[in-house]
Amino acid sequence: MTEAEPAATERRISIGDLAERVETILRRHGLNAVQAGALARTMVAGERDHCKSHGIYRIEGALRTVAAGKVRPDAVPDLAEDGGAIVRVDARGGFANPAFELGAPALARAARRYGLAALVINDCTHFAALWPEVEVLAGEGLAALALCPSYATVAPAGGTRPLLGTNPLAFGWPRREGHPYVFDFATSVAARGEVELRRRAGKDLPDGWAIDRNGEPTRDPEAALAGAMLPFGGHKGSAIATMIELLAGVMIGDLTSPEVLDKLGTTTLAPMHGELILAFSPEHFAKGRPGDPLARAEMLFEAIVGQGARLPSQRRFAARAVSERDGIALSEAEFTLLDRLASQAI
Amino acid sequence: MTEAEPAATERRISIGDLAERVETILRRHGLNAVQAGALARTMVAGERDHCKSHGIYRIEGALRTVAAGKVRPDAVPDLAEDGGAIVRVDARGGFANPAFELGAPALARAARRYGLAALVINDCTHFAALWPEVEVLAGEGLAALALCPSYATVAPAGGTRPLLGTNPLAFGWPRREGHPYVFDFATSVAARGEVELRRRAGKDLPDGWAIDRNGEPTRDPEAALAGAMLPFGGHKGSAIATMIELLAGVMIGDLTSPEVLDKLGTTTLAPMHGELILAFSPEHFAKGRPGDPLARAEMLFEAIVGQGARLPSQRRFAARAVSERDGIALSEAEFTLLDRLASQAI
Repeated sequence: MTEAEPAATERRISIGDLAERVETILRRHGLNAVQAGALARTMVAGERDHCKSHGIYRIEGALRTVAAGKVRPDAVPDLAEDGGAIVRVDARGGFANPAFELGAPALARAARRYGLAALVINDCTHFAALWPEVEVLAGEGLAALALCPSYATVAPAGGTRPLLGTNPLAFGWPRREGHPYVFDFATSVAARGEVELRRRAGKDLPDGWAIDRNGEPTRDPEAALAGAMLPFGGHKGSAIATMIELLAGVMIGDLTSPEVLDKLGTTTLAPMHGELILAFSPEHFAKGRPGDPLARAEMLFEAIVGQGARLPSQRRFAARAVSERDGIALSEAEFTLLDRLASQAI
Repeated sequence: MTEAEPAATERRISIGDLAERVETILRRHGLNAVQAGALARTMVAGERDHCKSHGIYRIEGALRTVAAGKVRPDAVPDLAEDGGAIVRVDARGGFANPAFELGAPALARAARRYGLAALVINDCTHFAALWPEVEVLAGEGLAALALCPSYATVAPAGGTRPLLGTNPLAFGWPRREGHPYVFDFATSVAARGEVELRRRAGKDLPDGWAIDRNGEPTRDPEAALAGAMLPFGGHKGSAIATMIELLAGVMIGDLTSPEVLDKLGTTTLAPMHGELILAFSPEHFAKGRPGDPLARAEMLFEAIVGQGARLPSQRRFAARAVSERDGIALSEAEFTLLDRLASQAI
């Protein structure tokens, strides 16, 4: 099966129609317009890019978090822009996504003014991937780095118990033609969503992903979810995950991954913490130096692709092209899920 | 042998005496005071912390680079501080170390003013580790991130040929008591210096460090130096190394790792490129938020150590304590090297 040909049990739905269905579900479950709109855009972007672990299967997690009273469905984020290099958005207990949408233009303005700037989002519930955020900033001609903690599910290298989060790190670099250079990955060996999807599918984990509650290596997704995941790249990935706790937790006066877990008491709800996004203006940084930074970056990308290596997100952008042309392929089970969620609504 | 007891063939020398000997050697080989002083401090810090791959064995590499005309031994770096959030130092073809020493106070001032700031060093020859730099900034109460390219010796994940550098990434976080939280590592599986030391010692490399010139895995240091090293952590480390090329090469209008190699024509001389250092004021970022960021960070460090995991640099700081108390242990061969270099001088 190629991505252009849905299986017999799949049907295609346009990006706009799916966004409308998801937004309607969220609205009917009590989310206000800014929360529902931003969340729907994020999940549909996941489905559009065939990034299923950040797609519509997350609707139920979002709604569980709302039902548990752990995120405010009616929050209206608040922007504090004082003309400095740090832009702050108080998410007011809502999801991070509308807080980012509110803060991004101010961050871009500050980065253009100072050369570099930071967006601090506080008191938000993190939801899904960070790549949509760095893509927005790359679309503004800026390089961007986004990071946030999660909840304590990852053991530090050499440790035995969950302490760090899966702590995603996303980076974007603007390109004049086509999609930006973008990566977004968990600093654990795998994203927690990947472990969860394998649990649902009854599949074992590869070696090296996790330890059980006794600190022993395990390939069983259940045992991994009860134990701890491992950081990617041994002590180096562990150090980067720790840096993310420090910069995007402690430094911005928001929760670290162990604090999130203490407060939430479970990993089945979306985690509440803060987020840090840095933006850089290549034009500003390169001023007075030889060469055009965007053109020079293309030479690097060509050299990577030229030796048979892949740029990150290439697969995602290929899936996006298909979705934009033909619509998003969903299984009948997924359509049934959408119907059920719509009819369950209050 | 513990680090406190030098082997029979070793003698101890005080940190100050070693710094003086190294500085004298460098001065006699034509380096001016700012170049020789900063380089000597960096190499002696490496020896002091028992970080041999950045220690005095690098003197010869520095002198070879000078002799080849690839670094200006008489360069006086130039600081451009315009009151903005980007501080620039033109190293004027000298080593990066004196350029950093010149720029660090201005970077700290800018970070305290704006909350975050960047130091761009251009036209410098990179020499040794980045941890001395982030330690200086952590000593100023700032979090710091330092990154630079190298020369093309690392294949991107999925590739077969050298393209990326070993591209070090260093991070520091200030602590009120004792040494800061610091990590500094190559984004290749190992630092090139480690491969070189194993070649000299006639030791094989561990699996997964390198590929040979045909793109096949190898454990032979010679074949690895002729082929390519591999990034740490697979595609994730490869993406981070690429990000470093973009931010600390392309963005700051300086050379990328393949450009450095093209220009230098060899990997036996120290590479010339630029460097990017970011500094963050935790006080500024946390303003108005609950909790003291430095105190909260300590809870995280305690939790890491409390489960038997190590903080990065712990071993280095332990070695430093011994060196500060007892002096630095050098082998007779190393003393002979110092004598030879001093007498060779012009």
